[in-house]
Amino acid sequence: MRSFFKVKTAEDIFESLKNIIPLGTESVHITGALSRILARDIISGEDLPGFQRCTVDGYALAARDTFGASENLPAPFTIVGEVRIGEIPNFDFKRGECALIPTGGMLPEGADAVVMIEYSQIVEDRVVEISRPVSPLENVIQPDDDIKREQVILRKGTPVRPQDLGILAALGISQVDVFTKPRAAIISTGEEIVDISQKTKAGQIRDINTYTLGGLCIKSGAEPIYLGITRDRFEDLKSLIEKGISQADVVLLSGGSSVGTKDFTLDSFLSLEGVEIVAHGVSISPGKPTIIARRGNMTLWGLPGHPVSAMIVFDVFITYLFGRLSGLSNHTEYNSHAIEAELDRNIESASGREDYIRVKITRREDRWLATPILGKSGLISTMVEADGIIRIDMNTEGLYKGEKVKVRLF
Amino acid sequence: MRSFFKVKTAEDIFESLKNIIPLGTESVHITGALSRILARDIISGEDLPGFQRCTVDGYALAARDTFGASENLPAPFTIVGEVRIGEIPNFDFKRGECALIPTGGMLPEGADAVVMIEYSQIVEDRVVEISRPVSPLENVIQPDDDIKREQVILRKGTPVRPQDLGILAALGISQVDVFTKPRAAIISTGEEIVDISQKTKAGQIRDINTYTLGGLCIKSGAEPIYLGITRDRFEDLKSLIEKGISQADVVLLSGGSSVGTKDFTLDSFLSLEGVEIVAHGVSISPGKPTIIARRGNMTLWGLPGHPVSAMIVFDVFITYLFGRLSGLSNHTEYNSHAIEAELDRNIESASGREDYIRVKITRREDRWLATPILGKSGLISTMVEADGIIRIDMNTEGLYKGEKVKVRLF
Repeated sequence: MRSFFKVKTAEDIFESLKNIIPLGTESVHITGALSRILARDIISGEDLPGFQRCTVDGYALAARDTFGASENLPAPFTIVGEVRIGEIPNFDFKRGECALIPTGGMLPEGADAVVMIEYSQIVEDRVVEISRPVSPLENVIQPDDDIKREQVILRKGTPVRPQDLGILAALGISQVDVFTKPRAAIISTGEEIVDISQKTKAGQIRDINTYTLGGLCIKSGAEPIYLGITRDRFEDLKSLIEKGISQADVVLLSGGSSVGTKDFTLDSFLSLEGVEIVAHGVSISPGKPTIIARRGNMTLWGLPGHPVSAMIVFDVFITYLFGRLSGLSNHTEYNSHAIEAELDRNIESASGREDYIRVKITRREDRWLATPILGKSGLISTMVEADGIIRIDMNTEGLYKGEKVKVRLF
Repeated sequence: MRSFFKVKTAEDIFESLKNIIPLGTESVHITGALSRILARDIISGEDLPGFQRCTVDGYALAARDTFGASENLPAPFTIVGEVRIGEIPNFDFKRGECALIPTGGMLPEGADAVVMIEYSQIVEDRVVEISRPVSPLENVIQPDDDIKREQVILRKGTPVRPQDLGILAALGISQVDVFTKPRAAIISTGEEIVDISQKTKAGQIRDINTYTLGGLCIKSGAEPIYLGITRDRFEDLKSLIEKGISQADVVLLSGGSSVGTKDFTLDSFLSLEGVEIVAHGVSISPGKPTIIARRGNMTLWGLPGHPVSAMIVFDVFITYLFGRLSGLSNHTEYNSHAIEAELDRNIESASGREDYIRVKITRREDRWLATPILGKSGLISTMVEADGIIRIDMNTEGLYKGEKVKVRLF
């Protein structure tokens, strides 16, 4: 019966995750909205700044009255008032009149430009000479120069950046609808695994995956729920998975390295109503012994016990999954923390699977060098030494020294 | 007297920030340690995994007993036991004996290698034939292969990554000393500025900087303390700055665009005991009208009122400042979110100041193109449109279309 389950390619997995839909939405205050994913387009309800706004300290006036002015033949203006910042000027101009205006001030009726204070000279009480002509609209922001009413200013499915908070504030939008954060239940299994607070005996190792996976969740915008360690007993495992399902949107089980655990994981997944197995083995290395199950929009992951393998499976698939669950509209994000580097050693790779190679990055003159880190995927120290990973395509048999590679930093 | 204060270069500012020292330290549980900066080196107290650990499912045996084995002439072994994961094997071997062992199991006395199960065949009860030779240590992790006792595994001054959490967990280190997060008091000033919850009248604009600066703080690992908006009155401003000093490690004042505000900011800073002015104007654009003051390790920033200018001053100096305050040991971090792109238009730049240009990034075939976004620094929409900024050096008069530029993404 088990032979029914087949090893899937990375592409198969992505294909199956494509129909994962975003979780619900919630409304948050903009002080808590950074990096959250917008749940709807933001459309401006008004023009901004909403009035003719001056960008320098100077004199507001009608531009045409300055035409022909020069240092030798300055144009005299009568100062009829002073614009106060934040207030509507309660005067207007006749020909040859002007008003003192500060940066940010609102232009009075009859003015269409501002001359910088540097090009003016007070010649007598309430009379100023202007020594340079200005064009209409010079040093002025028009009422809809920043934002136009009805304009889509931010798009659904994009993460909120600091400047986006700024534009929301500018429009008086203090509450914003975002997708809810995915919650991930994290469970470690394995007879040899003990809690980090415990002393180990020979043959035992401490629980690493709970913390690396928890850190990866936080980094990718999800909330980890730590459910701890379970022995390799079917009933214990099943009841902890059920707890995970009731509290979270994704269940991340890892381990164990033992033969038995893998079977218990599969059996536990299969024993849950409505669960189907998506993959029993994935053709990537490290990370092959991964079991993926699904019940509707909920996914259950039986990750490898080896810390490096579990991290790489997370980086390849679960980062993408969290993007889907949190409504991210595209995954250019995914590659944005990548740099191009030159490989400084040949790497062999088996055809028919994707290989993920840990690399250390160093600078040599004008370029980055990527040095592969060798070492078994059971060694967490190899991941600590690494600055990033490179991916070798399924149909590539290796890469040569000097080749350009894309390094995904972490 | 004011003439005493001079416009400083960016380099001057960095020079003056170099002697800012890290804030205190605190101990946090590793579930809350992600991205925090380590306050001391982490040194391993033990070897890991601490025992000879098997990396495959197979038979533990003495490698020399397999020498010469082949498919045609397999070597027979007597199975004397089965290693149970997480337990110390309570048997040992004589010549020609072996034990079944799972991945992760501890090697019994007398065994120095493991043959994968694929290269074995049970021929009778308790007898297995091995069809391939193994070398000593094959498929075995040595007790100190992952980490050696007394080894420095993580360095003071580095941010904690998910894999670092893993190595801490592996060593049973559940509490970790990190530098405290800088707290930044954020104040907006300006007669024309109103709270985002308020309806604006003509001539008024809503407070943008509180939220963009708050977002930038969070993004750079600091905690914003929102102190709100104050009118341009000396006493109000001074008392709010004092409140900021009492609650935070850095005070970020922004605004106003009006002439008066700048004077009030300077006067307020000067009225505080022990405060010295570091810069009254900085030769970067946008961002010139910046006032920087200092009292010991505390810095007070009078940022420009224009949202884009304030963001750029933050990105250039305050990200660096937070790095210093939070004990970050170097600033390669600073440039890690940068990509190389090709400029798709000429840019002019005034010599004698650093110019920061907002750019939009697009992909063309195998390279990134950077398109400058023009528009006044009062327009927050230009920042929303941008994907990053490029810096034009003080001694450069401009850049040409086709030149390679480094784009700092945000």
